[in-house]
Amino acid sequence: MRLLSSLLSSSALLPHNFTSRLRVPVSFQSHYFPRLFSMDSSEASLRNALSQNLSAVEAQGNAVRALKAAGAAKPEIDAAIEALNALKIEKASIEKQLQAAVSGGGGDGSLNRESFRQTVSNTLERRLFYIPSFKIYRGVAGLYDYGPPGCAVKSNVLAFWRQHFVLEENMLEVDCPCVTPEVVLKASGHVDKFTDLMVKDEKTGTCYRADHLLKDFCNEKLQKDLSISSEKAAELKHILAVLDDLSADQLGAKIKEYGITAPDTKNPLSDPYPFNLMFQTSIGPSGLLPGYMRPETAQGIFVNFKDLYYYNGNKLPFAAAQIGQAFRNEISPRQGLLRVREFTLAEIEHFVDPEDKAHPKFADVANLEFLMFPREEQMSGKSARKIPLGEAVSKGTVNNETLGYFIGRVYLFLTRLGIDKDRLRFRQHLANEMAHYAADCWDAEIECSYGWIECVGIADRSAYDLHAHTEKSGVPLVAHEKFAEPREVEKLVIAPVKKELGLAFKGSQKNVVEALEAMKEKEALEMKAALESNGEVEFYVCTLGKNVSIKKSMVAISKEKKKEHQRVFTPSVIEPSFGIGRIIYCLFEHSYYMRPSKAGDEQLNVFRFPPLVAPIKCTVFPLVQNQQYEQVAKVISKSLTFSGISHKIDITGTSIGKRYARTDELGVPFAITVDSASSVTIRERDSKDQIRVSVEEAATVVKDVTDGLRTWEDVWSTFPHHASASAED
Amino acid sequence: MRLLSSLLSSSALLPHNFTSRLRVPVSFQSHYFPRLFSMDSSEASLRNALSQNLSAVEAQGNAVRALKAAGAAKPEIDAAIEALNALKIEKASIEKQLQAAVSGGGGDGSLNRESFRQTVSNTLERRLFYIPSFKIYRGVAGLYDYGPPGCAVKSNVLAFWRQHFVLEENMLEVDCPCVTPEVVLKASGHVDKFTDLMVKDEKTGTCYRADHLLKDFCNEKLQKDLSISSEKAAELKHILAVLDDLSADQLGAKIKEYGITAPDTKNPLSDPYPFNLMFQTSIGPSGLLPGYMRPETAQGIFVNFKDLYYYNGNKLPFAAAQIGQAFRNEISPRQGLLRVREFTLAEIEHFVDPEDKAHPKFADVANLEFLMFPREEQMSGKSARKIPLGEAVSKGTVNNETLGYFIGRVYLFLTRLGIDKDRLRFRQHLANEMAHYAADCWDAEIECSYGWIECVGIADRSAYDLHAHTEKSGVPLVAHEKFAEPREVEKLVIAPVKKELGLAFKGSQKNVVEALEAMKEKEALEMKAALESNGEVEFYVCTLGKNVSIKKSMVAISKEKKKEHQRVFTPSVIEPSFGIGRIIYCLFEHSYYMRPSKAGDEQLNVFRFPPLVAPIKCTVFPLVQNQQYEQVAKVISKSLTFSGISHKIDITGTSIGKRYARTDELGVPFAITVDSASSVTIRERDSKDQIRVSVEEAATVVKDVTDGLRTWEDVWSTFPHHASASAED
Repeated sequence: MRLLSSLLSSSALLPHNFTSRLRVPVSFQSHYFPRLFSMDSSEASLRNALSQNLSAVEAQGNAVRALKAAGAAKPEIDAAIEALNALKIEKASIEKQLQAAVSGGGGDGSLNRESFRQTVSNTLERRLFYIPSFKIYRGVAGLYDYGPPGCAVKSNVLAFWRQHFVLEENMLEVDCPCVTPEVVLKASGHVDKFTDLMVKDEKTGTCYRADHLLKDFCNEKLQKDLSISSEKAAELKHILAVLDDLSADQLGAKIKEYGITAPDTKNPLSDPYPFNLMFQTSIGPSGLLPGYMRPETAQGIFVNFKDLYYYNGNKLPFAAAQIGQAFRNEISPRQGLLRVREFTLAEIEHFVDPEDKAHPKFADVANLEFLMFPREEQMSGKSARKIPLGEAVSKGTVNNETLGYFIGRVYLFLTRLGIDKDRLRFRQHLANEMAHYAADCWDAEIECSYGWIECVGIADRSAYDLHAHTEKSGVPLVAHEKFAEPREVEKLVIAPVKKELGLAFKGSQKNVVEALEAMKEKEALEMKAALESNGEVEFYVCTLGKNVSIKKSMVAISKEKKKEHQRVFTPSVIEPSFGIGRIIYCLFEHSYYMRPSKAGDEQLNVFRFPPLVAPIKCTVFPLVQNQQYEQVAKVISKSLTFSGISHKIDITGTSIGKRYARTDELGVPFAITVDSASSVTIRERDSKDQIRVSVEEAATVVKDVTDGLRTWEDVWSTFPHHASASAED
Repeated sequence: MRLLSSLLSSSALLPHNFTSRLRVPVSFQSHYFPRLFSMDSSEASLRNALSQNLSAVEAQGNAVRALKAAGAAKPEIDAAIEALNALKIEKASIEKQLQAAVSGGGGDGSLNRESFRQTVSNTLERRLFYIPSFKIYRGVAGLYDYGPPGCAVKSNVLAFWRQHFVLEENMLEVDCPCVTPEVVLKASGHVDKFTDLMVKDEKTGTCYRADHLLKDFCNEKLQKDLSISSEKAAELKHILAVLDDLSADQLGAKIKEYGITAPDTKNPLSDPYPFNLMFQTSIGPSGLLPGYMRPETAQGIFVNFKDLYYYNGNKLPFAAAQIGQAFRNEISPRQGLLRVREFTLAEIEHFVDPEDKAHPKFADVANLEFLMFPREEQMSGKSARKIPLGEAVSKGTVNNETLGYFIGRVYLFLTRLGIDKDRLRFRQHLANEMAHYAADCWDAEIECSYGWIECVGIADRSAYDLHAHTEKSGVPLVAHEKFAEPREVEKLVIAPVKKELGLAFKGSQKNVVEALEAMKEKEALEMKAALESNGEVEFYVCTLGKNVSIKKSMVAISKEKKKEHQRVFTPSVIEPSFGIGRIIYCLFEHSYYMRPSKAGDEQLNVFRFPPLVAPIKCTVFPLVQNQQYEQVAKVISKSLTFSGISHKIDITGTSIGKRYARTDELGVPFAITVDSASSVTIRERDSKDQIRVSVEEAATVVKDVTDGLRTWEDVWSTFPHHASASAED
């Protein structure tokens, strides 16, 4: 998310979701952030070496020319040329090292990442995991369809989300519309602040994100122009690091300074100006009720807080949850499935007493240990490291138990889906990334070919959202804590004597009364003391713009003891918010691998989806085309359907090896091959191991392993193994 | 859906979903349609009787006054008065009968329906099954949230839909965005035709649906004004029957004729004009790419036909399916959850060879027998009647087996959800309701307090949609049938001899060549014959606007035999389309009943949801507040969670009877009550029967009955019964 003005002052204004959650331009910048302070030393020294080498090459070149001009002896000239060539070889070598260093460490830099991505995307698009939407009409940037296997993966991920969060935690799930009237998003701050800075090609009118252009310029310069000095490189890296914090003016100035033009036409660009990212529409036929497609699902929960609190028996804590579409009218969407104009969010709003953020089930996750990247580590240029969650909470790295509990649950959720735990880290927001009201915020970031991608944000948003809607709607969104025993409290009572004030101030009486009643405790007690000693006091009435004289008879100020039966307060909100499409894309990359075919003549694609998310759990193949085998296949198919196991029969005459390869590429974990009328084989995708089971047992075995009631290892040790030459071609 | 011009001519233009599917103003009009031809005889005779009676009352009143004026004898006057009173009593009686007749038959007319609806809605809103969206901001008409139990019912319905249709039929499910560029909806016809006719209050600008105002006027007149003649009543009923077919001009004329004014202000109304029902927006920042929120999910499937066909191995038939949000910017939404501005659709597009609409699994549903309401029965004023599905297809009442198969599957789907089969009928569209291209169309209508509501439309849409997108996009959306043997076909070959034509016609040669090549077979064969006999023929070239003389040397015309290897054709689409919100609302009404509390002092609400759709499957209650019982409750809760059974623990000290009542009102089918450390009771909601099972077995028993592996009757006959006074208070 683009911040609006300069660095720290702006973040104090940012409403919900305005920190980077799911909005940070997916890049390496947060990754690079430490380099703002400690530029990678090898890169810097290489740049220095290159710069020295270039000077040396130039000097030696001049020397050779001078020798030639002076008609020096051949051996002398040859020696000088040899020295020049050696310098040039050194130059090539430094350039190669530097190239490797800037493209991401070792030799497997961004080029390899891109080619890996291309391979995965080709497979995904060819097998219809996803499809650019409206393709026959040349598509629309930032809109994608999930085709059959992608759609199945998505609905499996959502079903597991519901099981893991809603069901296990007894959350209150709601389902609110996408169409949202302006007043709601005015209260939340989105109407005013949900913007990105945009520049226009001054001749064609084509729009670009200002920060993207600046980012591209810096990255290109850093990666392709090896001749820039290490100072210049540090400057460009600094810009990348603070890109999110640049104001429109600052961005505009940099674009001018670097002479950045429109990428396609090289035309000059306009100054940057804010563009609201919500899709606007109009509700009803009158044109008088503006509305937007919601940019997040959370607001639907906040506006229902009162009813949900009642539904929960007026008890805290409780969590509400919502799965649904959200919309962001990106200026120029890039990065495929990661930055799209419509996406599925799954959000949880856990409401809790701000004075008690303990969590009764925290012990269940306290022993988990995974990569965490606390603020301090980022600032001091260190890397993410494994920290036991219990320690992170007890040491105060993570603000409170409830936040910690959700971090742990998110870790379990993602890894059970099949996200590689070594490419998953929880990164704490830096001070300038967080809104002023937020108590703490951690992003679950997953590493893929685009870098570390923010996929889940887990934020303690304090009471901000409920406050904002209370204020705008006039409906108090608060909780009550009934005291076991009434508590005695001292309260200040200011009682203006209206008769006396009326006589003294006539038409201004109302202003004086209001000013008296509005006094803070300290001021009132001072007035009380002054009145008691002097009988009269000067009092500034702001709405009159002058002092008036208040006499003892005009106001009674006292402290009274009152009994209170309850505490009324605005709950804090702890919000885990999941970008489902991003998680799925990362899952695709983490699940993908290639292995040689049996003949070794080609590389085959495999997705190692766990059964939980696999789009189809099982295939059923008759080994050869044969009525009897097909009949058996149909019987097994029927029992699989009865057990609710999604599957596919393939009765084409294709070789069994080809049929296995075809389903490996869809990530189908099990294949039942019918090669007799009484028993069949079940093959596991990744090990390619096969067991032999009776026709009657086949569906049950697959169901048990799919549902996680048995492991494949368990099944493998129970049933006879099958090793047939016909199994793979 | 409002038709656009007059009756039959318009429907020939109507694109997808433009017949009434999910769009017919929910009313009794189709129900009343037969009365257009045969007005209910008792009502007509009552109106006649009332009119005669009124004349008689008037005459007798005059007679009494005349006698009095003439100073007649008291006995004579008394007798006349007695006769007048008798007539008045008769009048009251006729009015009462007529009132009953017009308000829907017996004494349980629309008033009872409305009070029933009020009772159900109160319960639904109080228990947060649904909530008017953005309530704290005074809401937005036509937008509703599902609260926790409603949301759970919805996700159960969708999960079952996926199981029953997608999984069992191996459909290809896709997931496309809601934001849709204009070009797609231009091709489908929505941009031009997806409109309702609107009138505006000429002073305040408030908008109304023109047909709603006319409908309300007619209904009000018919139900409240008993003095109208039977001719007038017939006229009003005729209008109600043809309301959907009235043009803007016709509607405007009727509104003028009846002097209908704005309901709130009584101000005059504008003429009716079309208002497009799509929410419009703009994609991207340029403002140059208009878009809409999709009004249905079907288009996302049609535009992907080519890829899906390929995914299915280039084989027909196959079905694609999609669940998702759809949007219709209603002019003035009414009728609660039934007509909303945003709703969930579940749509299936089954693609089939137009020459073979047989279905291999039709036998599975052929023996089903349920209420069907064919076109003929509607036209002749009969009622829906039970017809075996096999018979309906074999007699041609239902156009083809595939359409019939889906009708059967929809019947099974709805009744398994808990829809009362006696309040479910399949109504065939009348000729004027169907688009010209549609082969046949049936609506699953469910009767609720609003009348018979169209909840699922099942239409054979022929090749319309694929044709429309082929034409607009230029991408052929077609299927291929490879012939087992190549087939020999005779083809006409027209070969203009360009050299000769060039010499003769110079610059006009191209026009002549094109005209020759464009000849239809008959014309070409006539030319061939003429050239063979005369050597020359006069030929009109349209683009030249004149005749030219064609010689035998200028063109060779022949018929040649060619071998064709495949047939290329556009598949037909059979489309079952489900309005999920409407189904759920009807389910709420069908599941609701009241029963007295044990003390008999109050009526308790119950929803008899089957376990499949119940929002929570089970509650766990410790009988009394007691640590040991609470511990047992937690153990059972854990195993329920492990089994994926949604449940709720209630450890409040409330009486067990109250706790049962509270969950009956949410439709929870089973309650486990902990009254010992070793065994517990399980109570079934509707029978209130209780069995006793061990703590270890409790979760399994509930899971088995919930998953449909055992019935309650089975469980009831297996376990000891429990009858405790404490069970109900």
